Amino acid sequence: MTSYRQSGVDIEAGTRATQLMADAVRSTHTPAVLAGMGAFGGCFDLAAAPGVGAAPVLVASTDGVGTKTLIAAALGRYDTVGQDLVNHCVNDILVQGARPLFFMDYIAVARLDPAQAAAVVAGVAAACRHAGCALLGGETAEMPDVYQPGAFDLAGTIVGVVARERMLPRDVAPGDAIVALPSSGLHTNGYSLARRVFAGRLAERPPELGGQSIGEALLAVHRPYLREVEALWAAEVPIHALAHITGGGVYDNLPRVLPGGAGAVIRHESWEIPPICDLLVREGGLAEREAFHALNMGLGMLVVLPRAAASAALGLLPEARLVGEVVPGGGVQLV
Amino acid sequence: MTSYRQSGVDIEAGTRATQLMADAVRSTHTPAVLAGMGAFGGCFDLAAAPGVGAAPVLVASTDGVGTKTLIAAALGRYDTVGQDLVNHCVNDILVQGARPLFFMDYIAVARLDPAQAAAVVAGVAAACRHAGCALLGGETAEMPDVYQPGAFDLAGTIVGVVARERMLPRDVAPGDAIVALPSSGLHTNGYSLARRVFAGRLAERPPELGGQSIGEALLAVHRPYLREVEALWAAEVPIHALAHITGGGVYDNLPRVLPGGAGAVIRHESWEIPPICDLLVREGGLAEREAFHALNMGLGMLVVLPRAAASAALGLLPEARLVGEVVPGGGVQLV
Repeated sequence: MTSYRQSGVDIEAGTRATQLMADAVRSTHTPAVLAGMGAFGGCFDLAAAPGVGAAPVLVASTDGVGTKTLIAAALGRYDTVGQDLVNHCVNDILVQGARPLFFMDYIAVARLDPAQAAAVVAGVAAACRHAGCALLGGETAEMPDVYQPGAFDLAGTIVGVVARERMLPRDVAPGDAIVALPSSGLHTNGYSLARRVFAGRLAERPPELGGQSIGEALLAVHRPYLREVEALWAAEVPIHALAHITGGGVYDNLPRVLPGGAGAVIRHESWEIPPICDLLVREGGLAEREAFHALNMGLGMLVVLPRAAASAALGLLPEARLVGEVVPGGGVQLV
Repeated sequence: MTSYRQSGVDIEAGTRATQLMADAVRSTHTPAVLAGMGAFGGCFDLAAAPGVGAAPVLVASTDGVGTKTLIAAALGRYDTVGQDLVNHCVNDILVQGARPLFFMDYIAVARLDPAQAAAVVAGVAAACRHAGCALLGGETAEMPDVYQPGAFDLAGTIVGVVARERMLPRDVAPGDAIVALPSSGLHTNGYSLARRVFAGRLAERPPELGGQSIGEALLAVHRPYLREVEALWAAEVPIHALAHITGGGVYDNLPRVLPGGAGAVIRHESWEIPPICDLLVREGGLAEREAFHALNMGLGMLVVLPRAAASAALGLLPEARLVGEVVPGGGVQLV
């Protein structure tokens, strides 16, 4: 007789993982959540969510954390990648002007370790609480023969809302200022490159990292920028566009929010490059253009706003830096 | 100098895959889609979606297709698993009474083959069109060292809507009839078991399968039940609950929609068991209880409704079978 467990799927481990996750998931629930974990579909009462106007536009984004999961596994540190995932997604829908409503996660592994999976979900839940976002549901999949031993994948989907008349980008024009909010390091891009360049050296503590190991610096949590943008909204600082600098770097991501006929100039040395990016560029021998394509290089989120509003933004956000401006033409020039 | 390609991530392949997917994605778009592929977040105008009432509840579900992807890879047939994924999710939110609004997909591979990824997304898009659901966005991830060579994973998230007063389940009571809509085979559960039992035999054509190979029977597309349920709604046949029979089988899934103090009796031989399920049970030596836990055994979706409404449902849906009833007590008894 064949038991289901012999075929590589451990139903009991799944049940245990679900039990371990339950409190973290529930800690994210607001009165808008009508049915969560255990339901066939998570149910979210749109009328009970604050700030949903008469013409709500739902904004959704799906993403993964890429091979950052392999750094997490190598360091045996499972509670941060869930934060990376949620924060990445929070930033992506923020670019359209949306606030998060709810999140759905997907974890897949070769062999399910309930404590590890629960640690991942605890990170997802912590970032959801921080963003005021309900963790409405998710899936944990055990897939023998698909994943490499010890490896796991983590992806998720966020759904947020914005009033139609407040959608971004809008009104971007040459002359607009570009203000940068700093990244914490690589965020969730460039990890295949970093794993190759730093192979076998995750425990090393080069002086440039100020005491941190390479592995620790690589695992720094992807920063969310919801609170910074909310501070600008609260002060009625006009925002024309936001650009989340992810895969493809500033070269690929900033043009996505610029209108036809507009480009951007970004000024070197107007912000600080995180030490881990500097180290990766140097030891990987990356040319500048390649570095700014593969990495965020310290530019976590760019805020495009009227030149006259830049000083208000810089005053409200001490970490922000004026890094450039929108110009006629196209593309991004580093000068 | 390190190129990004050397680190195992092929950005050009990603761009090519996106180009190949574009038409299929666009074919799912309705006027409600304000921004789709290429946007940081897909934007869906709730006011432009039909049937969204004054008290909309969003219903979301995330799922994967499990190791059915390995059967697809073994047969070199990439256009069906996307349909499995969407249909599974459509059925999950249907259980809460919700119609689909939009879908987000996630495909991850060790090494990206643009044509394969595009075939997967074409399947996702075909099922979305069938369900009237916009494919609003997604992510294709190339993850060297996480996935086994040739293997891939496919997961997705659906978001639908239901008016609060029409949410299911409601009013389920002992005496209600249980009507089954047939499955097409294993749907998306039991594949690790099936791969073990049928190892090396996917091309075999046992007479029980009426000409189909084992591989073809295993790859049969997960059926969606939206149109059948819409036919019941259109005819105002009252529905008390729906149960989508997935992992855990009828034993685990039917009780999820029954109130406390209610159980169910399901009558053997009141419906047809798909030949591939019969074959798997026999050759895997599964006991009955195990078979009905691991597999749907032909029960794709169960509809719980007032006894007086059962004949109307059976008249509208020629494939439907009266398979049991709700009884006082708890759990599911096969008699």
